[in-house]
Amino acid sequence: MERLAALSAVSDEPERLTRLYLSAAHRRAVDLVAGMMNSAGFDEVRLDAMGTVVGRYEGERPGAPALLIGSHIDTVRDAGSYDGTLGVVAGIGAVEALRTAGRRLPFAVEVLAFGDEENVRFPTNLSSSRAIAGTLPPETLDARDEDGITLRDALDAFGGDPDRAFAIGRRREDVVGYVEVHIEQGPVLEAKNLPVGIVTAINGASRRRVLLQGEAGHAGTVPMAMRRDALACAAEIVLAVERLGAVDPHTVATVGRLTVHPGAVNVVPGAVAFTLDMRGPADPVRLKMVEVIETAARGIAEKRGIGITVEPFYDAPACPCDPRIVADLEKAVHKLGIPPYALPSGAGHDAMAMADLCPVGMLFVRCRGGISHNPAESVMEADVDAALRALLAFIVDRAEA
Amino acid sequence: MERLAALSAVSDEPERLTRLYLSAAHRRAVDLVAGMMNSAGFDEVRLDAMGTVVGRYEGERPGAPALLIGSHIDTVRDAGSYDGTLGVVAGIGAVEALRTAGRRLPFAVEVLAFGDEENVRFPTNLSSSRAIAGTLPPETLDARDEDGITLRDALDAFGGDPDRAFAIGRRREDVVGYVEVHIEQGPVLEAKNLPVGIVTAINGASRRRVLLQGEAGHAGTVPMAMRRDALACAAEIVLAVERLGAVDPHTVATVGRLTVHPGAVNVVPGAVAFTLDMRGPADPVRLKMVEVIETAARGIAEKRGIGITVEPFYDAPACPCDPRIVADLEKAVHKLGIPPYALPSGAGHDAMAMADLCPVGMLFVRCRGGISHNPAESVMEADVDAALRALLAFIVDRAEA
Repeated sequence: MERLAALSAVSDEPERLTRLYLSAAHRRAVDLVAGMMNSAGFDEVRLDAMGTVVGRYEGERPGAPALLIGSHIDTVRDAGSYDGTLGVVAGIGAVEALRTAGRRLPFAVEVLAFGDEENVRFPTNLSSSRAIAGTLPPETLDARDEDGITLRDALDAFGGDPDRAFAIGRRREDVVGYVEVHIEQGPVLEAKNLPVGIVTAINGASRRRVLLQGEAGHAGTVPMAMRRDALACAAEIVLAVERLGAVDPHTVATVGRLTVHPGAVNVVPGAVAFTLDMRGPADPVRLKMVEVIETAARGIAEKRGIGITVEPFYDAPACPCDPRIVADLEKAVHKLGIPPYALPSGAGHDAMAMADLCPVGMLFVRCRGGISHNPAESVMEADVDAALRALLAFIVDRAEA
Repeated sequence: MERLAALSAVSDEPERLTRLYLSAAHRRAVDLVAGMMNSAGFDEVRLDAMGTVVGRYEGERPGAPALLIGSHIDTVRDAGSYDGTLGVVAGIGAVEALRTAGRRLPFAVEVLAFGDEENVRFPTNLSSSRAIAGTLPPETLDARDEDGITLRDALDAFGGDPDRAFAIGRRREDVVGYVEVHIEQGPVLEAKNLPVGIVTAINGASRRRVLLQGEAGHAGTVPMAMRRDALACAAEIVLAVERLGAVDPHTVATVGRLTVHPGAVNVVPGAVAFTLDMRGPADPVRLKMVEVIETAARGIAEKRGIGITVEPFYDAPACPCDPRIVADLEKAVHKLGIPPYALPSGAGHDAMAMADLCPVGMLFVRCRGGISHNPAESVMEADVDAALRALLAFIVDRAEA
């Protein structure tokens, strides 16, 4: 908890926590994490080409394949204190416990503190973990922030090595797997009264822009029966989305943005634009839901004589967690006397990038009210303790298997 | 039709028709209308203290009580060619026909071309007709336009007489009644395939601002069953408004403005604000509908655990047309071989102000697509002819009664 508090004090802005990728605060956080790793007894601590802090605790024989444990130390603007850093600190704590016990394992343990998970500063997507997975997109270094600074120049000034960014992808044979501890960022564990949960998959997502074209009219003079009210049509679709998104207990569907044209108190709405965000841990289930929702929307619009266009603008497949890692994490949690509870992750994580390299798994920690990306982000010390113990049990079990 | 075309060419803006109260174009329109009245053979044409053109055609004996026929010659911005002016030109045409026939009636006929019906320039409400009705609000002359010019100063420069604005209210004994011809500004007559219709009442209206307070959440991490989605709640209310607004065939209810907070594709809506506009020709029916809709909205919000506030911000009673004038207009329309069709007016008109002074009635003229407040506003010459004949028949019948 002290390490988390120390990290949350490192910010690019006074009065609130903002730590963007390759910023001055990120650089200070790198040094702070490296110091924590050194004092925890890692064998090697270094900054990789993309700015990830890599701490290695060797196994029984030097150069053995490594179990990777990681998360990120960048934040959104006006962030909370636990998103990302909790996973890094948990990894450091686990290695510290192994070192204190004088225990070496058949594999090395590496803790990775990624720098570009929130993707706030540059228009990138998990670039620091993708570099390690060997899937960094070629255009990444040319990305520019709002001030026109390229990622390449920012990385250079930071102490990274842009020329080696595409050379740090790990070989599969050097890696055992990747495990990430993270706050849930949702309300499920709190509702289940559980300190931790095991992630089954990171949800796939489909997003659509929907435009409804009805007919604007005078709110006083057009009788109800003669209207083609785009908002009433949208309302019926919003309720269909709510209903159809809940058919499977693991899917979600959301209309988050909706604008009404012309949007005057005395005018029947002529057009409505809204977004659809549909997610689920199993791609076939999600894609079926997307189809059913789109069909329902078209049917409602047709019935009402409203024009409809549905434009896809984002589709990402689900990232299933490795069944063996899921089972081992469940076993580790069970050993602590906690009922193992499996849930999907609705948000994206570095584990998605790492899944291209190796089997991945995640352990979620209850957070108060499900609140994240907000200074009100809060975890209980006992829950962090449970997560750390579960992570350690998982590592030791894996070593003994 | 030539007079209407001439008036539609008088604008404050090039390329489109905009004629705001007391503007230079309004002044030119006053002169044009006065010229039309003079050439039509009115006995007296004058500008009143509030800028209304008043043309008087005396009855059999000078100084007899007058039947008032009026509408307005101001417009919205980017207006059509018929809203308001049609009623003024119809009145001029009726007097012209009487004069041509050399016919004097037991009452005088006055045609009034009001200037402040659209209430675009100043934050006023039918000020030019209210002055004649004797109900001009005391603060009217101090109202300011966007440039800070007071109505008093604008009226002075226009050639009006602010010092007499509160002195021009007519005595009831000097007035027989008020009749207004106006385009329907709605689609009902077109749908019924009728050139004209008789207005039963100008709808009363109630407006409410509704605020729904749910809980914002991550669109990926909050399961459907744990959401308090303010937009889904609003959607259910919008559909209830659509349903309950249609229970009575003469009422309408509209959600015209709706905004979603925070309004991001990946965030479950935490709050929604929207407006309710509810109208009807009979106050008890409208007020019952308002109550039923509010109760339904509160019930839906309560069921969903959503906070709701409903704030009234406008309530205007219905203005019923005089039963005798309605019956006489129906008789006049019937004489032309047109089935008399009665309908409420969803929009407001000068007749609402005049109803404080005397019995009022209105004759609606079919307009294409129900379109108004738009350059696409369109009427058919044959329909205008029917309206003029009906108005004339109404006047003559009343004289003979």
